[in-house]
Amino acid sequence: MSSEYASHFGITNVPYGIASSTIRTQPQCVTRIADEVIFLDPLASSGLFEHVKGLPPGVFRTRTLNDFAALPKEVHKQVREAIQGAYEKGNLAAASESVEDINMHLPVRIGDFTDFSASKDHVLNAGEAITGQRSFPPGFLKYPAAYVGRCSSISISGTPCRRPHGQFIEDYTVPEKKIIYGPSRALDYELEVGAVIGRPVQPGQMLKASDADKHIFGLLLVNDWSARDIQGLEMNPLGPFNGKNFLTSISPWVITPEALESFKVPAPPRDEEVATFMDDKEAVNYAINLEAQVIRNGTATTTCKVGFNTMYWTFRHMLAHHTIGGCGLRTGDLIASGTVSGQADDEHGCLLELTSNGRKPATLNGGTELRYLEDGDEVRLTGRVGNTSDGVGFGECVGVVKPPRGL
Amino acid sequence: MSSEYASHFGITNVPYGIASSTIRTQPQCVTRIADEVIFLDPLASSGLFEHVKGLPPGVFRTRTLNDFAALPKEVHKQVREAIQGAYEKGNLAAASESVEDINMHLPVRIGDFTDFSASKDHVLNAGEAITGQRSFPPGFLKYPAAYVGRCSSISISGTPCRRPHGQFIEDYTVPEKKIIYGPSRALDYELEVGAVIGRPVQPGQMLKASDADKHIFGLLLVNDWSARDIQGLEMNPLGPFNGKNFLTSISPWVITPEALESFKVPAPPRDEEVATFMDDKEAVNYAINLEAQVIRNGTATTTCKVGFNTMYWTFRHMLAHHTIGGCGLRTGDLIASGTVSGQADDEHGCLLELTSNGRKPATLNGGTELRYLEDGDEVRLTGRVGNTSDGVGFGECVGVVKPPRGL
Repeated sequence: MSSEYASHFGITNVPYGIASSTIRTQPQCVTRIADEVIFLDPLASSGLFEHVKGLPPGVFRTRTLNDFAALPKEVHKQVREAIQGAYEKGNLAAASESVEDINMHLPVRIGDFTDFSASKDHVLNAGEAITGQRSFPPGFLKYPAAYVGRCSSISISGTPCRRPHGQFIEDYTVPEKKIIYGPSRALDYELEVGAVIGRPVQPGQMLKASDADKHIFGLLLVNDWSARDIQGLEMNPLGPFNGKNFLTSISPWVITPEALESFKVPAPPRDEEVATFMDDKEAVNYAINLEAQVIRNGTATTTCKVGFNTMYWTFRHMLAHHTIGGCGLRTGDLIASGTVSGQADDEHGCLLELTSNGRKPATLNGGTELRYLEDGDEVRLTGRVGNTSDGVGFGECVGVVKPPRGL
Repeated sequence: MSSEYASHFGITNVPYGIASSTIRTQPQCVTRIADEVIFLDPLASSGLFEHVKGLPPGVFRTRTLNDFAALPKEVHKQVREAIQGAYEKGNLAAASESVEDINMHLPVRIGDFTDFSASKDHVLNAGEAITGQRSFPPGFLKYPAAYVGRCSSISISGTPCRRPHGQFIEDYTVPEKKIIYGPSRALDYELEVGAVIGRPVQPGQMLKASDADKHIFGLLLVNDWSARDIQGLEMNPLGPFNGKNFLTSISPWVITPEALESFKVPAPPRDEEVATFMDDKEAVNYAINLEAQVIRNGTATTTCKVGFNTMYWTFRHMLAHHTIGGCGLRTGDLIASGTVSGQADDEHGCLLELTSNGRKPATLNGGTELRYLEDGDEVRLTGRVGNTSDGVGFGECVGVVKPPRGL
């Protein structure tokens, strides 16, 4: 029997990740085809990549994809083709194990994590849920907003989300606004896509949006767990901190630009003129169909279905804005898109939007109310590229909410 | 002739850093006494630390202080005493080189960088310079504000500061608020103190302020260079990003809690009741005398003299707030205090405050006006602990402003 996600990993996908097993106990570089996880170092030892110029020996034996990610696109392309060729010849069995027998680990060593806010609809919806106003921050039509996130809290899909303690306003509806300390009462998820940096951007190398693609090693799913009450009090004036830094989950498989190539779609038109370096005639998104589910008492409810093609700012724009002041990007850096949301009621990528900050509960399939996440709730993010038959997807990014720690 | 800072590095200091020289080309762990930089690996090889239980072989041969910083306080104490003893016996000459012959490097590998805003006076002054209002952000009397900073842009003292490009409002005084793109016109420094994490805080280990000291390996000076125009446009709603991520400079010597022990002073009283975990009967600052200078055309002007004892929130509070939601801290993490400012006119730790966001220029000793930093200006931050005769200081953290890159 094939797994739920076997069809995400067709022969045109060839994603990269880091895995270990009882046979191969040292985490190392792998790819996946259907439900087979294929270890790349044994393939390299067998000579499969011998013809690939510029592939350092032992590069797949490392605990992260960083060394491989930093290599030129031409090397990535040849490795991909060699894997596809060997699969077609049935030559991968000795290096393969079933996905059932595998532990996945963080795919890259992340030196810096930037989370953008690149969706127009998210900005308008989230603003409305908090302030009642639908308006853009002052610079939003010139560049995507961003904040820096916590690297040490980035964890692999499957890591439980312990409900964080923090300080927040007890009841926003009363004028006295008393600040209390305790477990968050407004735990949320954010459905996002992340880009992993491959070829580094040197400090001072100011990217143009049209020239940024070559620095992206691949994409993955991101759940930027958020405690809205803690975040709400701390946002003014320095942005999110404890409301976000307790956990960020990422999916284990990095989907490469080569796999995504056939799924390019144009970015939405610009509402305002932008600076020359942000002007990107070929601004492209990808046709990624994202979905969020909340699973309570074993019953799943789809809370969001949204296309990544709705994003106003693309990763090309994000990288250009990020580097224009001279900030470098290192291999393995994670650049996330921010919550992906569309205009429709079923296109809200977080509960802040879906439930208007908990004021207008949704009803789950089991019949219970959903305002924010409850202890025991599981959040499942998935992403499929193109149609079901295209064979390219991200798999899932999941996490169960655990009750707060005792003090 | 002794250097300007020889008196900062008396025998009661014994700071740690990473240095290389033409003789010892591989960056490695050092200490400094007066103007002598002492390489610790040769001392270890000579048996000086043989009696220190728990000091791993080769720990001083590494390119960062991380492995040493992670060791128990008792190990740090014994190493310090052994160095002091050997100095008194005149046994350090073979491992020493003059500070003139040394290159200093980043002292630690920094996995995450958090910059707090812990000074009441800075918050009030900076707010007034921007909005005309002297008031605290909503949560400020309950906990220090914070944002996450960019690790890859942290550089050692002496690194030039290239004026960043960015997008900002051309002229805040006109109502149309046109956004333009170009080199920042409001480049500023921030005089800060940073704490380097030693013993890590595990994810989920919620610190109390009274219990946080043991995780601090030592302190250093931080210049959080800021482009106020870029920052001003982007702050709403996600906090500082491109306005800060182009460069953060740190001083090379980590000053240990053992060296600072005799210079503890009580923290200011609390204005409001705080949560139990933030309640710290022994809240202590250190008597550090900080100074900022702007050097233009070879002439230095002291722009700020302020005591670190003015800080409302201490590092103990900062670590407790940082970890209360479950966020871990790793060895080498940098936790900065935010701008240190006092109440008096000569106690403004940045130009935003000193010149009211450039509207009220100061006059430099050379006679020119200072609104924000000009190309060629050098910024020098220094910090001395206690009095001149106490022999404990940070040395300096310097950087010269370079003109913007051509496009």
